[in-house]
Amino acid sequence: MKNEEKEFGKLFIHHVYFWLKEPGKQPVRNKFEKALKKLISIETILDSHLGVPAKTNRGVIDRSYSYSLLVTFKNKKDQDVYQTHPTHLEFIDKCGELWNRVVVYDSVSI
Amino acid sequence: MKNEEKEFGKLFIHHVYFWLKEPGKQPVRNKFEKALKKLISIETILDSHLGVPAKTNRGVIDRSYSYSLLVTFKNKKDQDVYQTHPTHLEFIDKCGELWNRVVVYDSVSI
Repeated sequence: MKNEEKEFGKLFIHHVYFWLKEPGKQPVRNKFEKALKKLISIETILDSHLGVPAKTNRGVIDRSYSYSLLVTFKNKKDQDVYQTHPTHLEFIDKCGELWNRVVVYDSVSI
Repeated sequence: MKNEEKEFGKLFIHHVYFWLKEPGKQPVRNKFEKALKKLISIETILDSHLGVPAKTNRGVIDRSYSYSLLVTFKNKKDQDVYQTHPTHLEFIDKCGELWNRVVVYDSVSI
């Protein structure tokens, strides 16, 4: 596949990393994963990936987070819709108490 | 689009954030961007996004990085091929002096 055929090269990338307060508790993980799966149903999301740290382990790799939420949008406007969407607000309301740290990286194409 | 039709939900996600030593110098940025574009030609990469911080700005957002490199692989094995690929080694050799911090998040699907 040539670079110019790559599919998401021009999208708005929203990548969130969550550090749960109790990452070792399965009921907490179940609740959080269920909520993440509902969250990515928001209609302006083009594509999504719900992840956990891979087994790779080098000095530059941060594998301390509990969950990764990667979602793509056509543009910032669609991301803005997501931010204030009732499903997103419900996610924060229901799950905000589960994490003690969250870091967001938003990126637009060069 | 329904969630089960999302395309990259099961992939290996490799997301790298670079903090350049001299992010304000255009010749440095040009060199780095050219090198990033060559880097993503590695054949085991399924998809890629070369980014800079979006205009979003909230407390949880880290927009201090200079460049974002997001690449997807079918699996860890394909990512391993990328890590030791001559084009990747050449990228590190030529550009490693340009950054003073790099953070990698590797994620696999839940």
